[in-house]
Amino acid sequence: MEFQEVLARRRMVRNYLAEAVDDEALERIIAAARKAPSAGFSQGQSMLVVRSESTRRAIAQLAGEDEYVADGFDPWISGAPVHVVVCVSEEAYHDRYREADKTDPEGSEIEWPIPYWWVDAGATMMLLLLAAVDEGLAAGFLGVHSVPGLRELLSIPEAVTPIGVVTIGHPAPDRRSGSLQRGWKSAAAVVHREKWQP
Amino acid sequence: MEFQEVLARRRMVRNYLAEAVDDEALERIIAAARKAPSAGFSQGQSMLVVRSESTRRAIAQLAGEDEYVADGFDPWISGAPVHVVVCVSEEAYHDRYREADKTDPEGSEIEWPIPYWWVDAGATMMLLLLAAVDEGLAAGFLGVHSVPGLRELLSIPEAVTPIGVVTIGHPAPDRRSGSLQRGWKSAAAVVHREKWQP
Repeated sequence: MEFQEVLARRRMVRNYLAEAVDDEALERIIAAARKAPSAGFSQGQSMLVVRSESTRRAIAQLAGEDEYVADGFDPWISGAPVHVVVCVSEEAYHDRYREADKTDPEGSEIEWPIPYWWVDAGATMMLLLLAAVDEGLAAGFLGVHSVPGLRELLSIPEAVTPIGVVTIGHPAPDRRSGSLQRGWKSAAAVVHREKWQP
Repeated sequence: MEFQEVLARRRMVRNYLAEAVDDEALERIIAAARKAPSAGFSQGQSMLVVRSESTRRAIAQLAGEDEYVADGFDPWISGAPVHVVVCVSEEAYHDRYREADKTDPEGSEIEWPIPYWWVDAGATMMLLLLAAVDEGLAAGFLGVHSVPGLRELLSIPEAVTPIGVVTIGHPAPDRRSGSLQRGWKSAAAVVHREKWQP
């Protein structure tokens, strides 16, 4: 699919058909997301792909899906045939930036002006969302409600942080997020030219 | 361009021709990046587009371009005809999550398990990098060396943090980052199935 069409079609979809996701399509989505950049090529991002129904139900429970459903939303988390848990290891960045080509003149690790591990995890998330649409599928993103809960459920080590879950499946009609009623900010509010325009 | 081709072509390019970037292409790149998602549709991301040569030189100086060049690299920062400074306002997220539909049962802002402002800024960065390739251009990403320095240079308010600069231009032959010699991690190291595989 054309990049611009992928972009135009992409939105957070919060309901899926029971239809399974094709194995090869899923592998292409994962392969796409592996191409996310990372500071110093640290490659601190990782993905945990969940297809088991019981695990998807447990992830949904941790996220409070029962409350969503009571509020009139679809059971979009447990109902998504694929969950990709996006993870990142801050430690991988520290390890990388203690190597000789990255240390400061005194041989010390830099002070991180920005925690690039989160930024890079966001790049991975974005690629997953786009690559799902490129396969004719839909995706959503679920923020983590309980990092320790998700770590325990999925045996994720302490040094690795799950930042959220990309749900993937064939789209079903869904109830849109109420947040969208806020409307997009104006171009002037989010795009500045040459200097910040107050 | 096909999404998969954009993805295959994308890499961090660290040298550009002097040739200008077409205005309409740049606006399409910016429009693409505005489509990044954000937690609660907070829309805390913003972009600052710099084309002025003197400002680009000042950004390059802040990033220590002279040292890069002394190390044998190209002056890729000042030489990129367009800089897009990716910014994010953490405050926008706190403001959004103090609204009635986002507070906890006691009416308080949630405790953020993950600082999603950085994650969302990473999504914006990723879209800029891809959209540049879609226009037949190339892009690079420069981490911030001095947040206060960049804030002062570009009049960015205290509540807004520049997370880095996406350089955009027509690609010129460049010296690849030494980090790439590390090679990509194996699929087994970065993709887990059902549970984390140690």
